[in-house]
Amino acid sequence: MTALADDRVLRGHPSVTLKLDAAIAATTFDRPTLVLDLDVVEQNFAALQRGLGDASIHYAVKANPAPQVIERLATLGCHFDAASRGEIELCLSMGARPEHVSFGNTIKRATDIAFAYRAGITHFAADAEEELHKLAEHAPGASVYLRVIVEPNGADWPLTRKFGCAPARVLTLLGVARDLGLDPVGLSFHVGSQTRHATMWSHTLDQVAAVWAQAQDAGFGLSLLNIGGGFPAFHGDAVDPLEAYATDVMAQVRARFGDVAVMAEPGRAMVADAGAIAAEVLLVSRKSDDDLHRWVYLDVGRFSGLAETEGEAIRYQFETARDEDETGPCILAGPSCDSVDVLYEKRPVSLPVSLRAGDRVVIRNCGAYTSSYSSVGFNGFPPLDVMVI
Amino acid sequence: MTALADDRVLRGHPSVTLKLDAAIAATTFDRPTLVLDLDVVEQNFAALQRGLGDASIHYAVKANPAPQVIERLATLGCHFDAASRGEIELCLSMGARPEHVSFGNTIKRATDIAFAYRAGITHFAADAEEELHKLAEHAPGASVYLRVIVEPNGADWPLTRKFGCAPARVLTLLGVARDLGLDPVGLSFHVGSQTRHATMWSHTLDQVAAVWAQAQDAGFGLSLLNIGGGFPAFHGDAVDPLEAYATDVMAQVRARFGDVAVMAEPGRAMVADAGAIAAEVLLVSRKSDDDLHRWVYLDVGRFSGLAETEGEAIRYQFETARDEDETGPCILAGPSCDSVDVLYEKRPVSLPVSLRAGDRVVIRNCGAYTSSYSSVGFNGFPPLDVMVI
Repeated sequence: MTALADDRVLRGHPSVTLKLDAAIAATTFDRPTLVLDLDVVEQNFAALQRGLGDASIHYAVKANPAPQVIERLATLGCHFDAASRGEIELCLSMGARPEHVSFGNTIKRATDIAFAYRAGITHFAADAEEELHKLAEHAPGASVYLRVIVEPNGADWPLTRKFGCAPARVLTLLGVARDLGLDPVGLSFHVGSQTRHATMWSHTLDQVAAVWAQAQDAGFGLSLLNIGGGFPAFHGDAVDPLEAYATDVMAQVRARFGDVAVMAEPGRAMVADAGAIAAEVLLVSRKSDDDLHRWVYLDVGRFSGLAETEGEAIRYQFETARDEDETGPCILAGPSCDSVDVLYEKRPVSLPVSLRAGDRVVIRNCGAYTSSYSSVGFNGFPPLDVMVI
Repeated sequence: MTALADDRVLRGHPSVTLKLDAAIAATTFDRPTLVLDLDVVEQNFAALQRGLGDASIHYAVKANPAPQVIERLATLGCHFDAASRGEIELCLSMGARPEHVSFGNTIKRATDIAFAYRAGITHFAADAEEELHKLAEHAPGASVYLRVIVEPNGADWPLTRKFGCAPARVLTLLGVARDLGLDPVGLSFHVGSQTRHATMWSHTLDQVAAVWAQAQDAGFGLSLLNIGGGFPAFHGDAVDPLEAYATDVMAQVRARFGDVAVMAEPGRAMVADAGAIAAEVLLVSRKSDDDLHRWVYLDVGRFSGLAETEGEAIRYQFETARDEDETGPCILAGPSCDSVDVLYEKRPVSLPVSLRAGDRVVIRNCGAYTSSYSSVGFNGFPPLDVMVI
C-alpha cells in the first residue's frame, strides 16, 4: 500500500487512481487484463503541456497503441511519434493529421517510407547514410532530424548504441542530406529510458548543444531540436512530479538552445500510471523444505505483458487483498513453460505469507510497454487483454 | 553456405531442404515470414520413433503451435504435451484424442484443470502441494507425474529452478497425491534445452533413477517415466543425428529403469529444421568513421520472432545471395525502436561486406520457438507470418 500512497502523492490525482481501483474491484476477469484510465492519460498530457510550454508533444505510440488512447490524445491536439507504417495508419485512422505524425524510427523499410510520404508525413528520423538515400528516393525533399548518440546519464534503463550516430559524423550526414535534396532541419537524441530526475539531463544537453553549435557554425541553419523521451514513471523509486520535471528540462533546453522549435516524445510518462494489470496467483510453492523463498507464479509473465522485467529492470508494484498480513520474500514468475519467464529472482519481492492460488494481484503503473509487447499466444495463452475506462 | 551443408549432412534430408529453399526463392514476402515444411516435421517424428522405440512421443506444442503441424502429427499418431487450455483445445480441434494429450505445465489455472478433466485429459504434471490440491479438487483421480529438479548438465540453455521440486520432497508429494485420491504414476524431469549430445544425459538419468528407486522402495509402484525434452536442433555447433541420439538416450534409460513405460516431449528437435525465416535487411550503417563493426538491421527481431536470441543463447545461421562475397563482422539488430532489440553484439555475426538495405536474408532452423513468441504488434509491426508448405 505504501507504493500506491507514494504514487498518489507524486502524481497528485487520487481521484482517478480510485476510479481505476473501483473498476478493477467491480470486474471479474478470466484472464490477465490491463485496465486503462483515459482521464489519467489526459491529465499527464496536460501536465506535460504546462511544463513543456510551446514545445510540440509527440506521444510515442509504441508505449501504448490502444486506439482509444490515440483518439483521446488526437482530440486534445497531441502530436504523435510513430515507429512503423502500422503506427502511422493507426494515428491517421484515429483522427491525427499527417503533419502532426513524425516517423521516428531510424530503421525504416523503403516501402514504408514511400507510404508515409504519400500519406503526408513530413518529418523523418535518420542516423545513417543509407537511410538518407532511402529517404531521398522515397520521400524527396522531406524534413529530416538526425539522431546523435549521447553518453549514458545514469537512467534506470540506459540505451545501447543501437540508435544514433557519433557526434563526429553529424556534419557529414547533414551534408549528405542536403546534397540529396532533403531538408536537414535538426537533431534528436534520447536521454535514456526512465531518467528519474530532470537534473540528469544537463550533461546530455551539453553534448547535444556542442554538436548543434558546430552545425550552426558550418552553416546548416538548424531549426528543430527533438529532445526525445526519457520522462519517467513511478516504479518504486522516487521520480520528480511530471510538470515540474518538464518545466526544469525546458529551462535547461532554453538556456542552451534559445528559442529554437522543440519537440518531445514522451511515452511512458504519458500512460504508465494510467494503467494497472489485474492478475491472479496460479501457484505458491517451495522447492524444498529448507527453501528461503517461496515461488509465486502469476497468470501474467514476461511473454504476456511484463517484458520490461527483463534483467529485473523495471520494478513493478504489487497489491493484494492480504497486504495487511505478514509478508515474506518471493521469487515471482510467469505462467509459461519457459524457464526464462521469471520476473524477479535476484531481488525478490515481498508478498503476504498468506497468499495462495486464486488470489487477485493488482500490478500498478503498467500502462506503458505491456500490452503491445505481449506475445500472440506463447504457450497457448492469449495476449494481455485491455479494458479502457 | 557452410552451415547449410553441415545441417544437410547432420540431418540427412537434402531434398526437403531444397524444397524449403525453392519455396522461399519463388515467393515475394512483404513482411518477415516463417516458411515451414511439414515433410521435415514428419521425417523428424519418424526418426524419433525409430530411436525411441516403444516410448510415447508427446510433441511439445509450445515449440510451434501451427495448426497444420498439429494436424499432421495427430494423423501420424503422435501424442501431445500441452501447456495451457489453449493448447489442449488446439490439439483436440486438430484431431488428437484427449487421452493422447498431457497437461504438462506445473502451473495451471484451476478452471483450466477443470476444463481439461471434462475434456478427457488423463495425465497432469505437478511439482507442489498446492497444485496437487487443485488437481484433486478439479480433476479427481487423475494420473499425476511429479517433476524433479535435476542439476545442470552443460546444455546450451540450462533451465532455471522454476520447474520441479527438490528430490528430497518427492516422497512427500507422492504421499500427498495418493492421500488426495490422485494416482501418482511417475516422475518427470527436463535435461536442459538444447542438450547437444546424448552422452550428456547420463548424470541426469542417474539422479532421477536414485529418486525413482526411493519411491519404489517406499511402495509407490511408479509406472511412468517422462523424460521431457532437450532433444537438440542444429544451431551452428555439431549435434548428434536425431535417430542415433534418441537410440542412445533410450539405451541409457532402459539400463537404469528397465521396461517401465516411457514418454518423451520433444519440441525443438521436431520442428526447428523444418522452418526458415525469410527476412530482409532494412539498414546497414556505421556509427562512426572508425567503427570496427557494421550494424545490420533486419526486419525481424527479438519482439517479432527471434526471442531466443536473448542473451545471445541461440545462434541462428544466416544466408544471403551475396555469400560468395568478402565477409566482415556485424552487430545484428531488429527493426523496433527498442534498445534491447539487438540480436548479436557480444559475438558479432560475419556477413558479406556488400550487404545492403533490401537484401533478403534466410535464417535457418527457425521452426521452433519463433512464431508463437512473436509480439502482437510491438512498434506497430505485425506478428511473424507463417507459410506452411
